[in-house]
Amino acid sequence: MAQQAVIGVTGLGVMGRNLARNFARHGYVVAVHNRSSAKTKALIEEFGHEGDFIPAETPEAFVASLARPRKMVIMVKAGQSTDAVIEEYAPLLEPGDILIDGGNAHFADTRRREKALKETGIHFVGVGISGGEQGALEGPSIMPGGSPEAYKSLGPILEDIAAKVDGVPCCTYVGPDGAGHFVKMVHNGIEYADMQLIAEAYDLLRKGVGMSPVEIAETFRTWNTGRLESYLIEITAKVLSHTDPTTGEPFVDVVVDQAEQKGTGRWTVQAALDLGVPVTGIAEAVFARALSGHVDMRRVARGLPGPSGGRLDHSFADDVEQALYASKVVAYAQGFNQIQAGSDEYGWNIDLGAMAAIWRDGCIIRARFLDRIRAAYEADPDVPTLLSDERFAAEMGDAQDAWRDVAVAAVRGGIPAPGFASSLAYYDALRAERLPAALIQGQRDYFGAHTYRKVDRDGVYHVQWELTDLPEIRSDV
Amino acid sequence: MAQQAVIGVTGLGVMGRNLARNFARHGYVVAVHNRSSAKTKALIEEFGHEGDFIPAETPEAFVASLARPRKMVIMVKAGQSTDAVIEEYAPLLEPGDILIDGGNAHFADTRRREKALKETGIHFVGVGISGGEQGALEGPSIMPGGSPEAYKSLGPILEDIAAKVDGVPCCTYVGPDGAGHFVKMVHNGIEYADMQLIAEAYDLLRKGVGMSPVEIAETFRTWNTGRLESYLIEITAKVLSHTDPTTGEPFVDVVVDQAEQKGTGRWTVQAALDLGVPVTGIAEAVFARALSGHVDMRRVARGLPGPSGGRLDHSFADDVEQALYASKVVAYAQGFNQIQAGSDEYGWNIDLGAMAAIWRDGCIIRARFLDRIRAAYEADPDVPTLLSDERFAAEMGDAQDAWRDVAVAAVRGGIPAPGFASSLAYYDALRAERLPAALIQGQRDYFGAHTYRKVDRDGVYHVQWELTDLPEIRSDV
Repeated sequence: MAQQAVIGVTGLGVMGRNLARNFARHGYVVAVHNRSSAKTKALIEEFGHEGDFIPAETPEAFVASLARPRKMVIMVKAGQSTDAVIEEYAPLLEPGDILIDGGNAHFADTRRREKALKETGIHFVGVGISGGEQGALEGPSIMPGGSPEAYKSLGPILEDIAAKVDGVPCCTYVGPDGAGHFVKMVHNGIEYADMQLIAEAYDLLRKGVGMSPVEIAETFRTWNTGRLESYLIEITAKVLSHTDPTTGEPFVDVVVDQAEQKGTGRWTVQAALDLGVPVTGIAEAVFARALSGHVDMRRVARGLPGPSGGRLDHSFADDVEQALYASKVVAYAQGFNQIQAGSDEYGWNIDLGAMAAIWRDGCIIRARFLDRIRAAYEADPDVPTLLSDERFAAEMGDAQDAWRDVAVAAVRGGIPAPGFASSLAYYDALRAERLPAALIQGQRDYFGAHTYRKVDRDGVYHVQWELTDLPEIRSDV
Repeated sequence: MAQQAVIGVTGLGVMGRNLARNFARHGYVVAVHNRSSAKTKALIEEFGHEGDFIPAETPEAFVASLARPRKMVIMVKAGQSTDAVIEEYAPLLEPGDILIDGGNAHFADTRRREKALKETGIHFVGVGISGGEQGALEGPSIMPGGSPEAYKSLGPILEDIAAKVDGVPCCTYVGPDGAGHFVKMVHNGIEYADMQLIAEAYDLLRKGVGMSPVEIAETFRTWNTGRLESYLIEITAKVLSHTDPTTGEPFVDVVVDQAEQKGTGRWTVQAALDLGVPVTGIAEAVFARALSGHVDMRRVARGLPGPSGGRLDHSFADDVEQALYASKVVAYAQGFNQIQAGSDEYGWNIDLGAMAAIWRDGCIIRARFLDRIRAAYEADPDVPTLLSDERFAAEMGDAQDAWRDVAVAAVRGGIPAPGFASSLAYYDALRAERLPAALIQGQRDYFGAHTYRKVDRDGVYHVQWELTDLPEIRSDV
């Protein structure tokens, strides 16, 4: 009998190819298949020496080469292609086999697919994989959803190829059906917020202080030795110190300033709206990217008046570090709230601390900081917001003066900092004794008879605003 | 032959009942029906003297009482009930009849329903109706979508019962299928933003200046004689001057400060995300309401450190008026951008100036200000953003110093003003010569090979960041 593969990968784009190589490099026999066999051949020719690959020309041959229970990873563009591949393979598989979607699927699609396949006895496992091409090859952060039973045989392989922090794999069972893709989605949402905050920090140093990109790169490099240490800060320094080869200008000055997006940030905000979780940092980041691309609006708005705005001195950079850190804590606190809310809504029972732990390496938002979040949830798994964790609370307290100085400098300088401004407003709203939401309830009761509750008594009330003596009636009895 | 009704209303909740009365008061014979006939009887008993009603006990009798082409308005809770009613009535109607949904349907549902009914020859007209109970009775703002053919016979009746501004009805044909409900949705989203801004203005005067609710009511009353004149400012003054009858405390102080929402604000932001339109003012407003309801988070965050923050003097109120006005212009500019984007996406060909015109009275956001928006679109129907309209641009220029002072006061005082902060950041972002979105493109190219464009040359490029000499390759050729 011919050698059989422990796992297979269909869809050999950059991500699929690198994931297959990662499996092979860890000693697993890997079946590989692609709709057009050119990519399969190229993989074998270029990287065949890295391990044991079984190339397959057809889905049938591919499935036949897999050891039971079969484990195959679909690595195609998320959406209809995924459904097409599932439709093609489901009839070839048997109960107990494990069909893994490693693409950036929407968690609702994963829930739908898992439900549909359940009847056939095939385990459908939606897996969030972060880390880009390099992560896929050298060790990504992996967020698998699906049945615990499927994880029992699949999990050890995924944990093996994942990134490691002190020997602990950046992969753990997340929860049933769409849980893995949901967590990956929020990961990406947080990534949007983090990138926007870094961009604002850069912009303030550039326009407010007048530092050059190279000087700012140096500042980021320094920050990267402290509590902000992270992959995003590290690569930001590299991007900022890069010189455009053709013009000799700083790279960042020759790039068109219109940020693109692929959709996961948008999904995160849309899902958060459904769950009622305020994720203002992610929303501002997604909208800031959208705004940057509206060239028509930007063109006509360019002449609008701004402030005169004096220069800030170099010591301002320390304040920006504090503001960046505090805003980042808010963004992550909001993201973790969303994971908790999703877990409650869909019954996933997600371990938040474990999510922070598997993001510590391999993924785009990997950072020293995530170990602090892990520790916060270890200290109190039910903490309603990370901001009230003892250590974070103390840091927010220390940072808040500088954070306010930076928000003020942005406003005074006419430098847009929606991420900093919004996160600070969130902080102040959360700690407010009373919010003007009471007035909003009054307005709603006035125009729509939407009723309100009272601080001193139980019950639901309505004022008959149209009558001159404004009688209040209790409307829940 | 018995008298026949010009129009019918099924679903006699407060909105349906008042709409039926409005038709009757305008001399139309109105057929009325409700699933449980008690409501029908109550309507006839209480208000039968107001006009000619034909009560019907069954859908069959209801339909039989309508003159052809039949026009019947569904006034039930948006969602599955609407589908149930359509399913019940469609078989009883004939080609050419007009089925009108006056509920707060999602525009995507309206599109689906219109498409499904098209095959039967029945016109399905999704109508946005704003103005609450009182508006429905005395003259709402009406936003009808659907076929132009249906509008030809239905439009005059709707225009007749709508609010009027100098004799001009607050009702006009919006566009095909879901256009009416889409515009109504954005109207509600703007309403959320407007209410949040008013609430922030109140909060700043209360906490920052130390004014009492009654004093602030007086300030709002003064503002209501100027450019901020609007229904929302008017009722805010009334809510703020109201005293709780049982405690003798200001009403706004005894209302639980957790703002509720019914979903249209959330829909607006979700749709805007799909359309790529930054509606930060609406998003912050929706999230501010959500935040206010998270009592668990607010409880643990209450002790977080804030600034010492001194008192502002009464002259600060003038700055708040400027900030409120400028932020309001931003919120409306964003909302109108979303209507334009929806119109482009779905081919609705919506006249933006006409939308501003029909919101001038009858609806919750009715305001003097809307005539300025109408005029701006009359001057240039293609203006990419209202902010660049000559008159608005001049006002923004005049207001921006005070606007910045207010944003700074909020930050220094630890008073959450996410709406003011976010709208100012939007203004500064839109007028920025360069945005740090260029850095974000650099980061994306670094970790995901997402490529970037350059300011000095055509093409799409990628830096091979992993190589030491960082070669740039053109990836679109």
